[in-house]
Amino acid sequence: MEVNNGGSAAAELPECISSVIPGWFSEISPLWPGEAHSIKVDKILFQGKSDYQNVLVFQSSTYGKVLVLDGVIQLTERDECAYQEMITHLPLCSIPNPKKVLVIGGGDGGVLREVARHSSVEKIDICEIDKMVIDVSKQFFPSVAVGFEDPRVTLHVGDGVAFLKAVPEGTYDAIIVDSSDPIGPAQELFEKPFFGSLAKALRPGGVMCTQAESIWLHMHIIEDIVANCRQIFKGSVNYAWTSVPTYPSGVIGFMLCATEGPTVDFKHPINPIDADDSHVKTKGPLKFYNSEIHSAAFCLPSFAKKGESRVEGQIAISTDDYYST
Amino acid sequence: MEVNNGGSAAAELPECISSVIPGWFSEISPLWPGEAHSIKVDKILFQGKSDYQNVLVFQSSTYGKVLVLDGVIQLTERDECAYQEMITHLPLCSIPNPKKVLVIGGGDGGVLREVARHSSVEKIDICEIDKMVIDVSKQFFPSVAVGFEDPRVTLHVGDGVAFLKAVPEGTYDAIIVDSSDPIGPAQELFEKPFFGSLAKALRPGGVMCTQAESIWLHMHIIEDIVANCRQIFKGSVNYAWTSVPTYPSGVIGFMLCATEGPTVDFKHPINPIDADDSHVKTKGPLKFYNSEIHSAAFCLPSFAKKGESRVEGQIAISTDDYYST
Repeated sequence: MEVNNGGSAAAELPECISSVIPGWFSEISPLWPGEAHSIKVDKILFQGKSDYQNVLVFQSSTYGKVLVLDGVIQLTERDECAYQEMITHLPLCSIPNPKKVLVIGGGDGGVLREVARHSSVEKIDICEIDKMVIDVSKQFFPSVAVGFEDPRVTLHVGDGVAFLKAVPEGTYDAIIVDSSDPIGPAQELFEKPFFGSLAKALRPGGVMCTQAESIWLHMHIIEDIVANCRQIFKGSVNYAWTSVPTYPSGVIGFMLCATEGPTVDFKHPINPIDADDSHVKTKGPLKFYNSEIHSAAFCLPSFAKKGESRVEGQIAISTDDYYST
Repeated sequence: MEVNNGGSAAAELPECISSVIPGWFSEISPLWPGEAHSIKVDKILFQGKSDYQNVLVFQSSTYGKVLVLDGVIQLTERDECAYQEMITHLPLCSIPNPKKVLVIGGGDGGVLREVARHSSVEKIDICEIDKMVIDVSKQFFPSVAVGFEDPRVTLHVGDGVAFLKAVPEGTYDAIIVDSSDPIGPAQELFEKPFFGSLAKALRPGGVMCTQAESIWLHMHIIEDIVANCRQIFKGSVNYAWTSVPTYPSGVIGFMLCATEGPTVDFKHPINPIDADDSHVKTKGPLKFYNSEIHSAAFCLPSFAKKGESRVEGQIAISTDDYYST
């Protein structure tokens, strides 16, 4: 493991910075060909190579500090609220009294911070494969990594796939998969065997939420994820999306699935975190999530839906009438 | 007026292309400092300078053809559906039987195309200041400029502010202001006297919709627009937003206002265009808009709302608890 930080990093710039707009970070990837979002870099704060990926932290001029893994923006201080709050409260506000929650990935701690707002939660496990992400978040993103400080949290550094296999059946009320894109170390987290392990680890009527790419860019990946989830999860299976400016195309989606058991209606939150303000005193107010935006997140543009599916009126996802120019 | 097009344009590249990623267009502006969206250019198709602005059209590698005014992306073939459909159907689906509609700006014709889907409409006026935009759209964006072909359309090339002043009181059921950003030729279209003219030109209970920037980037501009509109319009005043990947921060907002008269509930469309499929035969299906996403567009993230206003439960817009890092 090679780690550079502070002043030494500046001498040897990562390719994504030096190769495009001088002094700007540009996010170029085969996952979004022909476009790139660029952010002006004030200072590179950390640069390292873990056993799994390249890790970069820089101070931007207008988005606060930015965390980048393998050239892809994971979070900025300015808009991380949208992702962390939505991926957490969409599932947890959809079930009554979540008690045991597992987070897979999410090494920055932001999802933990949001899970910890729920006073019903008694136990929060997190399995993150890359310790460097945790360490870097604690050093540079204290308002995100604060999630690790909750006494209900147990950290497991390791492979989420292996961790899940060892979990006794029916353990968790909710599992949140906060992964990077399905190219690289997170690939397995988008495949059917992994979804099977998730379903097994959940109690009847338990819920899982995983990040599920952009409807503007990745309809085929999303169609595969939806099809896989419909085979594995026998309860509700719904797709939601939200705005995150620094993610490609400015949006990110979420796959929400429930196991067979008590009915879960993801579109109508029954456990509204924004109605209970006890968490606000210690953690500050929610910046993005509220019950209205929860329900709105399940409304998809016409190009992303085609007909009604059998599952609770959720629309099937198709690209058939999408981009025909 | 200096016009270059075809091969001659390639020799003299516009600054926004040559100065950043070679062969890519980058959108850099003081309106979104410290960030830029870049799109790979396959071929420059047109480059000219009108009396009002620089006009650029290029073929991109993954977003189809792209129209740029003064360095700012106005539309791409891939995602123009989201903007055109939302700015049009949000107002027109909120009132019964719109008959007379005025479009200010919108020289590409896309809003006309969408207005023309409404079979109740008898008369569509459009006032666009820049003839070059119309000509370029007809030449390079036929699926957008098709809006001009509707027999109900009357084109007025001129200043929208002056045009409105000459409109008899109470003429229109709906006015759509499809302007560029409030820097440059469109500045007046965001000021109080113009809103006053709009209100006067509308019948009682008539509606107007104007593009109203990004909640992620321009909260202060939006606050000013909302405050101005609340003073001028005595009916409903609501802010909505939607996803448009190639606009800065990936979203664009809309200000929807009704004049005093029959109550307008913008959040609950009473004139659903997606329930009437007569327009689909000639114009193809809607790609983005549907009644669900209409209502969802009015749900704002917590950072953009603060308390309830007196107007039909619409939330006031504030930055108080926004970006505190």
